[in-house]
Amino acid sequence: MDKNVSANSKHRTVVLTMYCPDQRGIISAITRFLYENNGNILYLDQHVDNNEKVFFMRIEWDLNGFRIPSEEISNNFHSLANKFNMTWKIFFSWDVPNMAVFVSKLSHCLDDILARYNSGELNINIPLIISNHNDLQKTAEKFNIHFYCLTKNIKDKTDKENKEISLLTDSSVDFIVLARYMQVLSGDFIRKFENRIINIHHSFLPAFPGAKPYQAAFERGVKIIGATSHYVTEELDSGPIIEQDITHITHRDSVQDMIRKGRDLEKIVLSRAIYAHLSRKIMVYKNKTIVFS
Amino acid sequence: MDKNVSANSKHRTVVLTMYCPDQRGIISAITRFLYENNGNILYLDQHVDNNEKVFFMRIEWDLNGFRIPSEEISNNFHSLANKFNMTWKIFFSWDVPNMAVFVSKLSHCLDDILARYNSGELNINIPLIISNHNDLQKTAEKFNIHFYCLTKNIKDKTDKENKEISLLTDSSVDFIVLARYMQVLSGDFIRKFENRIINIHHSFLPAFPGAKPYQAAFERGVKIIGATSHYVTEELDSGPIIEQDITHITHRDSVQDMIRKGRDLEKIVLSRAIYAHLSRKIMVYKNKTIVFS
Amino acid sequence: MDKNVSANSKHRTVVLTMYCPDQRGIISAITRFLYENNGNILYLDQHVDNNEKVFFMRIEWDLNGFRIPSEEISNNFHSLANKFNMTWKIFFSWDVPNMAVFVSKLSHCLDDILARYNSGELNINIPLIISNHNDLQKTAEKFNIHFYCLTKNIKDKTDKENKEISLLTDSSVDFIVLARYMQVLSGDFIRKFENRIINIHHSFLPAFPGAKPYQAAFERGVKIIGATSHYVTEELDSGPIIEQDITHITHRDSVQDMIRKGRDLEKIVLSRAIYAHLSRKIMVYKNKTIVFS
Amino acid sequence: MDKNVSANSKHRTVVLTMYCPDQRGIISAITRFLYENNGNILYLDQHVDNNEKVFFMRIEWDLNGFRIPSEEISNNFHSLANKFNMTWKIFFSWDVPNMAVFVSKLSHCLDDILARYNSGELNINIPLIISNHNDLQKTAEKFNIHFYCLTKNIKDKTDKENKEISLLTDSSVDFIVLARYMQVLSGDFIRKFENRIINIHHSFLPAFPGAKPYQAAFERGVKIIGATSHYVTEELDSGPIIEQDITHITHRDSVQDMIRKGRDLEKIVLSRAIYAHLSRKIMVYKNKTIVFS
Repeated sequence: MDKNVSANSKHRTVVLTMYCPDQRGIISAITRFLYENNGNILYLDQHVDNNEKVFFMRIEWDLNGFRIPSEEISNNFHSLANKFNMTWKIFFSWDVPNMAVFVSKLSHCLDDILARYNSGELNINIPLIISNHNDLQKTAEKFNIHFYCLTKNIKDKTDKENKEISLLTDSSVDFIVLARYMQVLSGDFIRKFENRIINIHHSFLPAFPGAKPYQAAFERGVKIIGATSHYVTEELDSGPIIEQDITHITHRDSVQDMIRKGRDLEKIVLSRAIYAHLSRKIMVYKNKTIVFS
Repeated sequence: MDKNVSANSKHRTVVLTMYCPDQRGIISAITRFLYENNGNILYLDQHVDNNEKVFFMRIEWDLNGFRIPSEEISNNFHSLANKFNMTWKIFFSWDVPNMAVFVSKLSHCLDDILARYNSGELNINIPLIISNHNDLQKTAEKFNIHFYCLTKNIKDKTDKENKEISLLTDSSVDFIVLARYMQVLSGDFIRKFENRIINIHHSFLPAFPGAKPYQAAFERGVKIIGATSHYVTEELDSGPIIEQDITHITHRDSVQDMIRKGRDLEKIVLSRAIYAHLSRKIMVYKNKTIVFS
Repeated sequence: MDKNVSANSKHRTVVLTMYCPDQRGIISAITRFLYENNGNILYLDQHVDNNEKVFFMRIEWDLNGFRIPSEEISNNFHSLANKFNMTWKIFFSWDVPNMAVFVSKLSHCLDDILARYNSGELNINIPLIISNHNDLQKTAEKFNIHFYCLTKNIKDKTDKENKEISLLTDSSVDFIVLARYMQVLSGDFIRKFENRIINIHHSFLPAFPGAKPYQAAFERGVKIIGATSHYVTEELDSGPIIEQDITHITHRDSVQDMIRKGRDLEKIVLSRAIYAHLSRKIMVYKNKTIVFS
Repeated sequence: MDKNVSANSKHRTVVLTMYCPDQRGIISAITRFLYENNGNILYLDQHVDNNEKVFFMRIEWDLNGFRIPSEEISNNFHSLANKFNMTWKIFFSWDVPNMAVFVSKLSHCLDDILARYNSGELNINIPLIISNHNDLQKTAEKFNIHFYCLTKNIKDKTDKENKEISLLTDSSVDFIVLARYMQVLSGDFIRKFENRIINIHHSFLPAFPGAKPYQAAFERGVKIIGATSHYVTEELDSGPIIEQDITHITHRDSVQDMIRKGRDLEKIVLSRAIYAHLSRKIMVYKNKTIVFS
């Protein structure tokens, strides 16, 4: 399933994301490199972290008319990148990322992702869904996506994770979405997909991390509930935040009402994170994100 | 200054707020009491806390045509209240509450309160402003409000609080607003004004309690900042929440930007709490609020 | 498909919605009626329209212990209703409404409705989907719902609408949702389902009614886009508004970006309207709604 | 009153805003110009309007270490600007703009502006306030700002506007804020201050232009109310929109409630527009704005 190839082939672009120690002349050097090779800049976003003294940039240009063939861009950019001590990546518009979805029993986030996928809204492939329960197998089947049920216990967690990793590797998975996946992944697993596992947590972090945040929100008597999408790190619910949103509640809302209203928040906040990730608009530095608009 | 008397006298109303163990017949009994005395209900709001099995109601009626004189309503209502084991209060529209404001150095919340006060938006009197600094004395003078600067140190905190209490008592203060007052009040002080001290905290509680929440928000890399108005209890930033709101931020926002954007949140969220409080729309039960709309 | 019966049978409730000329004693009379028959009120919401001098109430009570059998409630309530000149309706929790969905080519609203339906979030049956195109037939099939493609032209519009009405009647459809249905229904059709056809319009009405609102929003240079759910009346996009929401945009957003961001708004705003409608929380008076919370 | 001079002198920066026909090499040329003169870029924001084929940029750099003296920057930039056919402006951080405020009877927007002004939040001078009523004269006096009451009638409108223009000219006013000024300015007046008059309209435009938008919103039964800040053009409430926001309302909100809730929206939306304008973050092209973040 590669539904976006034709759309992309008519407008071939490349995205460069980079960061380096802040210094004079970076933008000038990169834009000159593009100009001298007849590149037409479509978007340029930059950010200076004044505390860390780091410069970040995302630049997208049209390959139409660009003098360097796409397969040689990396080689040609190398010396410039080294001069400024850049950490950088290049993404081509025709490389459609492979996304795996991890789920448990709750369907709303998966349903939303699959509806977007099916309508062509998301420029991705979803080769497989992994779950620790089989409740959502039928949903996967509706969309003809492989579904693997891998229930873990304390003893076989490492074995099962290894099985998951080989499934992900076999499908060349680029990034993983935890769509209300109710399991903690091991540090080993997380390090294999550093900044490539997106989780949705059902509270406005850092408030109410861990289990049952709506119950905790109810008990505290808050007047807003929220959802947070973030990259997964070893410390639970503490990774770099991508996107957050909230909705207002009142004393009339029971825990069940919060869960109902929260579902809409969760799926929207998760989908915005997926969209930003696959649009190559997110950069991670230390425990924070730059999300270009 | 009693600017709202004339407005109220043409439309004299009374508000009853009550709660009691949930049981059948409460609404019927109260509305019958009003009907039999020719009362015209203007608003009726009720709420059942299904966890605590407690019934809450706020009912406002027109005194125009009501057969019981205002000064005898309490006496007449007593037996009904006792029958249902109610905790209850009665407020007359012509009783304009006296509000004290506590400030430190930051002006934006006080400025906003005084502008609303001066324009007649708030049906209150502000007999005095108390501060631990004299920075805002001129602001108080502009509006002809008494300003008392009481700087506290560890030794004289109790003395100064006693002085504050006598000032508040002398002015018959009904409730206190901490408009970015950077001091912790003692338990003794707080108990004297239980559920009558409104604080504004510059985060979406329970995230980032205590000092420097914007700095903490910046360090965590959140994508929203918030403000919370709540009644003050002995445990810092843990009292019953009245109102919360947030605004979205991005990686571009420095701590200074958050402080700037947060000011608008703080003053709006505080003013909504003040408005709800003086409209007698807030009821407190345990550590949560019912805020009728 | 009647998945909610078991859930409802354990907690059998009844909802009464009524309005009548505002006058003293209405709440007292109704709550007394309930109390004398041992009814336990679960929710009571009331509203007085001071311009129209009309009183509105929605009251929900537990049938557990209520002395009047459900099938006799209407008869018993009649004389009271007449006394106050009420317009009223009664809904039982075990009567699951039948909802039809009308669609054209766009899938996002239908996808969202069906995901909610499939997960049991919505206490409804969906016996059929009607479209003027066959693009979404497969989606209907995934959920085993009858799909009827009725393409209309100027000549056969009345015939096709009659066919639609007989399909709806055969399935005992209670209300209709236009999930981005790109056709104008006739006045005859609309009158048959007065205040029972919910439409989603992709703008914050009354701005940008009619076709291509995102294009119009782009051209005007607005900084927000919105969505509006409303009951359909003969005048296009002018019926009673149920729910509205917006999202912020910037100069960077193209029409395509607006369409993408708008999809999320549309499906959420539509689903809130459906939820309020089937919860019997909406009352319509003249061209406005009361939506109890 | 020039309270920001000292703050600015320690960090002297310059902002260049420019637009020109879109073409390759613009960013490269400008950033090279800065780099070769040892300029350190603090912010760079750019936008391409793909419909109009116009490129927009705002670039801010540090004058500390920049080799061209500030008074010669314009001359030095000229040839580059001409080569790309730029429309451009340069702003120095120590040039504090002079802002005039026009008011009528309503105080909330003026109160908010003056509180921000007094606290040093706004890097502006306010040399004068002009009104067609004298209600707010005392407010102006509190802040020691000249207040001119110029009541216009049909006959003397031109004379009074000429008087206003001479007052504005005498005070070297850079831009004007209409803080709920209830008068229509003539085309001649507006052209003298093209894209330099900011108005706040109390609706989410293009809905409810003209008089009494809250009344119109009430009658239409909308579920949101809004405010819009925009530059004034000859066509009423139709100029380039700078900022919009909304708040949710319900059937319970009377016109008076909308007015009360709308006040907070209006002052916040207006203040954001003022902040963006004086930060030189707004560019106007045809009837739309680019507002850099």
